[in-house]
This record gives sequence, C-alpha cells and structure tokens, in this order.
Amino acid sequence: MTDEIEFYFDFSSPYGYLASTQIDKLAERRRVKILWRPFLLGVVFKITGTVPLVDVPLKGEYSRHDISRSARLLGVPFRFPDKFPFGTTTACRAFYAVERDDPAAAVRLAKALFQAAFGAGRDIAAVESVIAVAAEAGFDPATIEAGIHDGEAKRRTREIVDTAIQKGVFGSPMFIVGNESFWGADRIPHLEKWLETGGW
Amino acid sequence: MTDEIEFYFDFSSPYGYLASTQIDKLAERRRVKILWRPFLLGVVFKITGTVPLVDVPLKGEYSRHDISRSARLLGVPFRFPDKFPFGTTTACRAFYAVERDDPAAAVRLAKALFQAAFGAGRDIAAVESVIAVAAEAGFDPATIEAGIHDGEAKRRTREIVDTAIQKGVFGSPMFIVGNESFWGADRIPHLEKWLETGGW
Repeated sequence: MTDEIEFYFDFSSPYGYLASTQIDKLAERRRVKILWRPFLLGVVFKITGTVPLVDVPLKGEYSRHDISRSARLLGVPFRFPDKFPFGTTTACRAFYAVERDDPAAAVRLAKALFQAAFGAGRDIAAVESVIAVAAEAGFDPATIEAGIHDGEAKRRTREIVDTAIQKGVFGSPMFIVGNESFWGADRIPHLEKWLETGGW
Repeated sequence: MTDEIEFYFDFSSPYGYLASTQIDKLAERRRVKILWRPFLLGVVFKITGTVPLVDVPLKGEYSRHDISRSARLLGVPFRFPDKFPFGTTTACRAFYAVERDDPAAAVRLAKALFQAAFGAGRDIAAVESVIAVAAEAGFDPATIEAGIHDGEAKRRTREIVDTAIQKGVFGSPMFIVGNESFWGADRIPHLEKWLETGGW
C-alpha cells in the first residue's frame, strides 16, 4: 500500500475546508503522508459544464445548511464569506510559491487561508487579502507578494490543474491513493478503510 | 424528537438502493418508523435542470465506481441494470397501490424491486417486469397489474412527487425528520446522530 495521499481541493470549497480539518488526524492514525494539492475547480467546471453546488436550485440551499450542520458536528468554526464562491488563483499561486522551498510551510499557509475564509468568513480572493492572511501566519509579506507574481508559481498552478484533470478530479475535495479516488469530505471514512485494508 | 423518518427515493437510484439496505438497521437501533416514499426523480430533475449523476462527465464514471465500491464495503449484492437510468413510474404506482391497504407489504415490494434492479441487474421499468418481480415476492400478479393501472395509484404517485418538491427533495435518497433533511446514503450517520441527540 502506498503511503501517500493526494489531497486535491479548491480554496473556495467549504467541504474542502471541512476535509482539511480532518485529514491530519487520518494521516496520524494511518501513518500516511498527505500531499496537499490546491487546484482551480472553476477550470474543471468549464470542461465538465458544472455549476457551483450552492448555485443549483434546491441543492444549493440544502448544501449551505448541510455544510454548517457538518461543521457543527465536527466542532470546527464555520462562516460563509460574503462573496462566495470566490476566485482562488492567487491563493493557489501563493501556495505553490511557498511549496517549492518548503512543503510543510505551504501546508501551514493553506490551513491559514482556509481558516480565514471559512473559519472567519474573510476574503482570500484579493492579492492583498492573501498577503495579509499569510503575514498573520508568520510569512514575510514581501516574499508572498513576489511569489504570487512569480512566473514559476503561475506555471506550477497551471500544471497542477492539468494533472488534476488528467487524473479525473472533478470536485473538491478529492483524495487519490494509488489509482483509487475518493470524492467528498464524507468519503474520508472510505479512504481510511481503504488504507487500513489495502482495498476491497 | 419525532419517531418517524420519511425516506424519499427513486427506484432508479443506486444510492437509494444502498440506503434501502441500511435503513432498517437504523430504525431498529433508534426505534423509529421509516415511511418509504418512492417518488419520480426525473420530474424533479426537469424543474432543477439536473441530469442524472452517471451522465455527468468524469463524475459519472467516478460515481459508477463509487457505487460498486460502496456496495462491496456494505456487503450487499450490486449490479447495474443494462438500461440505466430507467423509468420508475410503474414501480411507483405498484408501490402506492399496495400501500393503500398494507404499508408493510408495500415496503416488501419496494425491497423486492430494488433487489431485482440493483442486486440482480434486472429490468423493473416495464409493466410485465414489475408484475414478475412482485409475483416472485408473493404478490398476486392480477392484483398488482390492476393496481398499476388504477387511477388512485396514479393520483397518489403524482401527489407524492408534488409533496417531495414542496419539501425541497432534489435527490435520492433523501431523509426527512421533522424539518431536517439529509441527502445521500452517506448522510445516514448524520441522520442517526440527529435522532440520537435531538439535533445540534
């Protein structure tokens, strides 16, 4: 059994946020490594002709309710940002700029961004918002700003989106272990069972 | 806490089938009554502009895989019928024709239809198929046939679809307890927790 899980998510995905609050515990229990892979779900949606969940009649209202209810059950703070869904290209680029030299720091940044967006309902779409959240989390603002505008981080973001599409990632969160995909925060129990048993 | 759960499902819903194999155990554990409410998801999809899950690019392939994988994990037989999704108006009418006089018998019929469709991959769209499955489950073929064509069963089916729409049912399976809705076979744990705690 492989010891690495790819964790694909969009920073604008509330279920991605919920999953981000649970995945470390799974990694610890099953002694696996999590490879955090923020990507741009909007690009995938254009290909699949999907609209954001919360914009679908009936399902949208239910989802907002279900997300809050799930967060309360998990005991994690939750608040919808005023503007939702929101753009996540800047957050993605900042992540990959940091990740190049320090993957663990990039995960810390991702958690800080998710907490700001869905724990506190703050904006993380604008460049200055991403920089502010990163600064509060101990990152150097000038380095983050340079990273966001860095050609390599842009290229890496595009590359990850392409990889996600190639791997059939169509939603957020999606976990890939070996050739097996698990879609949704509510599939974490199946993912864990898969790691535990080696598949069934 | 109310002691009744409405269980809305479409007979062409594989996740509805999976839920149907689990819901009795929940009812027993939590001492609640399950009100089986087959409805016509196609009518709702026309209103919400939704297409069947398995027809969505990428998501469709994943879903087929996830459904089989979930069935194996639950240890229940699973096979996709050759024609899928399929029409369920006849199955619905047969259910409500039987339910009028004998709700418990209607649940037995629903289970037999689900098992035929997704346990054995048989057709349950055609009138003769529904009659055959019902006959094997011990129902009188002539009575079932009369029920399918009965005006009252047709009226009842339409009424249930209207009720489902009014209650915001947009998918299958969906469980309603009091004013709270839970969508998806994978929300049964939340439903159970809700019953256990009275909500959170």
